[in-house]
Amino acid sequence: MQLTEIRIAGFGGQGVILSAIVLGRAASIHQGAYATMTQNFGPEARGGACSAQLILSPTAVLYPYVSRPDVMMVMSQEAYGKFAAELKDGGTLIIEQDLVRVSELKGNIKVYSCPATRIAEELGKRMVLNSVMVGFFTAVTQLLEADAVRKAVSDSVPANFREVNLKAFERGFEYGLTASATYPPQKEVETQLAYSQE
Amino acid sequence: MQLTEIRIAGFGGQGVILSAIVLGRAASIHQGAYATMTQNFGPEARGGACSAQLILSPTAVLYPYVSRPDVMMVMSQEAYGKFAAELKDGGTLIIEQDLVRVSELKGNIKVYSCPATRIAEELGKRMVLNSVMVGFFTAVTQLLEADAVRKAVSDSVPANFREVNLKAFERGFEYGLTASATYPPQKEVETQLAYSQE
Repeated sequence: MQLTEIRIAGFGGQGVILSAIVLGRAASIHQGAYATMTQNFGPEARGGACSAQLILSPTAVLYPYVSRPDVMMVMSQEAYGKFAAELKDGGTLIIEQDLVRVSELKGNIKVYSCPATRIAEELGKRMVLNSVMVGFFTAVTQLLEADAVRKAVSDSVPANFREVNLKAFERGFEYGLTASATYPPQKEVETQLAYSQE
Repeated sequence: MQLTEIRIAGFGGQGVILSAIVLGRAASIHQGAYATMTQNFGPEARGGACSAQLILSPTAVLYPYVSRPDVMMVMSQEAYGKFAAELKDGGTLIIEQDLVRVSELKGNIKVYSCPATRIAEELGKRMVLNSVMVGFFTAVTQLLEADAVRKAVSDSVPANFREVNLKAFERGFEYGLTASATYPPQKEVETQLAYSQE
C-alpha cells in the first residue's frame, strides 16, 4: 500500500461516513496500516452533499487533509457535481450506477460503476447499499485485503444487521471482480470501435 | 462563535471520538454552525493515544487540519505528553483530574480540571466519563449553547444509556460552571499569595 487519498460522497443516510469508518478500520486494525478519516457535520441537517475524506497509508498520517483524491466513491448526482473535479488525473472514480450520471470528466480517469441500490434491494435491505459499495471498492481498487474489510464490516454494523451487510459486501465484491476483469466496460469498447470505423 | 480548533485526546475506550462527534453535532445540527472532525484509526489496536481533531466555525470549514488548537481536552497522561505542547498560547486546557498531571506547560494557558471518572462512578457507569467531560467543556469554554449539546448527547448515545449520559452531562456542566466562577483555582491563588509574601 502507498499513501492513498480517498473521498467518499453521497447524501445523508446512505452510510457515507460508515463506509469510510469501515475502510479505515480495515486498513488500521486488521491490516497493520494507518488511516485518518475527516467528516463534515451539518449536511444531514442542511440537505447538502455528505462527504468523508479518508487517507490510507503504510506509515502514520501526519497531515489528514485530502486535496486531490486518488480514488473517489460517489453515491449521488449532487455529490458528483460538487466533488468530481477534485479527482487526480489518473485516478479512479467509483459510482452508484443508477444514482450518478458521469459527465464532463477531464483527464485519464478509470470509471467503475455498480448497481448497488438494486443489489441491496435484492437482499431486501436498501440500507446495505453502502456495504455493497464497500465490497465493490475493495475489488476494483485492490488497496485493501478482502478479509480485512470483511472483519471491519462485521465489527462496524449492529449485530442484528451483520449477516445482511456481509452478504451485501460479498455481492459488491463479486460484482467488482467481474468489473475489473472486463474493464473497460463493453459499452465504452463499442464506442471506441465506432470511432475507429469513422 | 469564531473559528475554533480543538483537540480531544485520551486512550481507546474513553469515548474520545464520541465526544468530538457530540460537540460537532451540537454546533452544526442544533446550532446552525459548521464543524469537521478528523479521527485517527489504529491506536485502539496499537495501545497508543487516541485523538480527534474538531473544528467549529460560523462558516463552512475549508481546511479541516488542526495545527495549533485553541482548546485541548485530555483524558490520559500519555495523550498529555504527546499533544500538550501543540496548545496555542492563550489557549484552554481541560483535563480529567485524576488521570492527568500537568507539567512543563509553557505560555499563558488556562487549565480547568474535572474529576470526571469519580463523577461517572457516582452515577454507576464509568463509561459516561466522556459525557461528564463534554458537560464540563460546555460550561468552561462557552463555545456552544448548553441546550444544543444536550440534544447532541441525546441523539448520539444508545437509547438505553440516554438518561445516564444526560445526567453525566448535567453533573459535568454544573461542575464546570463552578470551576469557571472560581477560576483560578484556590490552590493557585494560595501559591501566588505565598510568592507575594516572600
